[in-house]
Amino acid sequence: MNDQNKPPSTADFQEVKDYLQSLQRAICNGMEQTDGAAKFQDDAWSREQGGGGLTRVLRGGQVFEQAGVAFSHIHGPELPKPATVARPELAGCSFQAMGVSLVIHPQNPWVPTSHMNVRLFVAEAQDKQPIWWFGGGYDLTPFYPNLEDIQHWHRTAKAACDPFGDEVYPEYKDYCDRYFYLRHRKETRGVGGLFFDDLNSWPFATCFNFMRSVGDSYLKAYLPIVEQRKNREFDNRQKEFQRYRRGRYVEFNLLYDRGTLFGLQSDGRTESILMSMPPSVSWKYNWQPQPDTEEAMLYRCLKPRDWLNAAAI
Amino acid sequence: MNDQNKPPSTADFQEVKDYLQSLQRAICNGMEQTDGAAKFQDDAWSREQGGGGLTRVLRGGQVFEQAGVAFSHIHGPELPKPATVARPELAGCSFQAMGVSLVIHPQNPWVPTSHMNVRLFVAEAQDKQPIWWFGGGYDLTPFYPNLEDIQHWHRTAKAACDPFGDEVYPEYKDYCDRYFYLRHRKETRGVGGLFFDDLNSWPFATCFNFMRSVGDSYLKAYLPIVEQRKNREFDNRQKEFQRYRRGRYVEFNLLYDRGTLFGLQSDGRTESILMSMPPSVSWKYNWQPQPDTEEAMLYRCLKPRDWLNAAAI
Repeated sequence: MNDQNKPPSTADFQEVKDYLQSLQRAICNGMEQTDGAAKFQDDAWSREQGGGGLTRVLRGGQVFEQAGVAFSHIHGPELPKPATVARPELAGCSFQAMGVSLVIHPQNPWVPTSHMNVRLFVAEAQDKQPIWWFGGGYDLTPFYPNLEDIQHWHRTAKAACDPFGDEVYPEYKDYCDRYFYLRHRKETRGVGGLFFDDLNSWPFATCFNFMRSVGDSYLKAYLPIVEQRKNREFDNRQKEFQRYRRGRYVEFNLLYDRGTLFGLQSDGRTESILMSMPPSVSWKYNWQPQPDTEEAMLYRCLKPRDWLNAAAI
Repeated sequence: MNDQNKPPSTADFQEVKDYLQSLQRAICNGMEQTDGAAKFQDDAWSREQGGGGLTRVLRGGQVFEQAGVAFSHIHGPELPKPATVARPELAGCSFQAMGVSLVIHPQNPWVPTSHMNVRLFVAEAQDKQPIWWFGGGYDLTPFYPNLEDIQHWHRTAKAACDPFGDEVYPEYKDYCDRYFYLRHRKETRGVGGLFFDDLNSWPFATCFNFMRSVGDSYLKAYLPIVEQRKNREFDNRQKEFQRYRRGRYVEFNLLYDRGTLFGLQSDGRTESILMSMPPSVSWKYNWQPQPDTEEAMLYRCLKPRDWLNAAAI
């Protein structure tokens, strides 16, 4: 990919696919090491209409109650209907979509939940150059937030973006705050991170490098936080608060998350899509935290904030 | 309402409202008696844009882990956008919507979950007769199904419909099977019951009588099943299966349920809408029941069936 204006080739797409598969391996290895007990169970699947994936799930670990890391590469002769609503010019195009998506639900409520996704979408009409775009990002969802953790998370996100321009981190940090927002709760999902979509304003190779930079930085952003908090003692009240807040995760994913809704509407593999669901969840009618409790602290974090320059939660 | 062709008046709407409020009281009283320990906590609320409601929730009972029974009557000068997508002719009309909606999550996995809803919607344009329709129904969601219970449920539903015509029960039983369907799971939510919507083909008084017949039959349909099963012993495995299957309830309500989605999109009162969420839920990646277990039996029920003529599950 020396000539940056050349349209991407089959070999370029294959290179992205190779990267995604190696990213999945690296992330699962890192998670297993940090967990120290449980191993991922692998589920390879294929799809009648074309393509398939490898869903890897670790359950009941020492550190992770559930960690799901999915790779998929699906293709087909015609874009699924939900994908062409916003882009009617692509109706009838053949397509391929590949990505890695993960959600980590830790045992310990002092450890935040995290999510990461990187993906490439390609639409091809006969005798035309392929239309492609990258998307992805990661966001952190603490239960008992810690400013040091949040700043480490955002510093790592910023470092992944900075080689691509000073405006990149602020732009995708803002997009993340807007995307992971529960309108019916007037809450962000957590303390954010990065979110990008429809990225094709740079040459293909640069976009791919950016996606790689985001993907490669995820473990560096998350695992130090896990290591820092995983041995802190917790009690039932804190576990119960974690289960309660996981309800918001469910609400976001089923009400708003584009990947989840697109997957379910286009007859994706339900179990791989819903591996993001938390292993144990609770809802409590009209629950509110008592003022000045550790639980109340979280609610000060559930709006867009300039975390890198925050002096306190 | 002697003249059945007369358009309904303010007094008629008030009569429906009075009925709905008395229905809520009767249902809550019945639930408290059956529970024998816990009482409903009442939350009266009002809505800036007009109207309000009374949400009543019983939690941590002897029999009911959570029972939510909500009355609401909201009105406003202009229909919320989501309501006029399918009926563009109503854009700009003032409206009122009133109803009772409930979801019961029992402690004991031998007792099915149940849901009931009855509602009246009225849209009014200046100098025109009001446009109105009724909707409602109830459906049963067992964990460990019992043919006797299911047949009692459907017999009671049929008895509520029969005075209004022989075709009524089969039509609304079918509608229920189609409505409470999880497309991404290829499963019905449970064993069905009744569902009707947009009902205005009969005179107003007849429609109201039908809604009343459905509303009044709900306790007769549900409580005998609760009484029959509430003292049966259960173990952790069965409780865990109940929590797992409650995940499907969450998926249905957040992905498909019109009332939930309409409520959240039109800035309804989130806590009253989501009081339908189960108190404790679990998801397990790619879980399947072992053949010939009691858990597998449920999966034979999750498709439309002619329950009244079924000889076995």
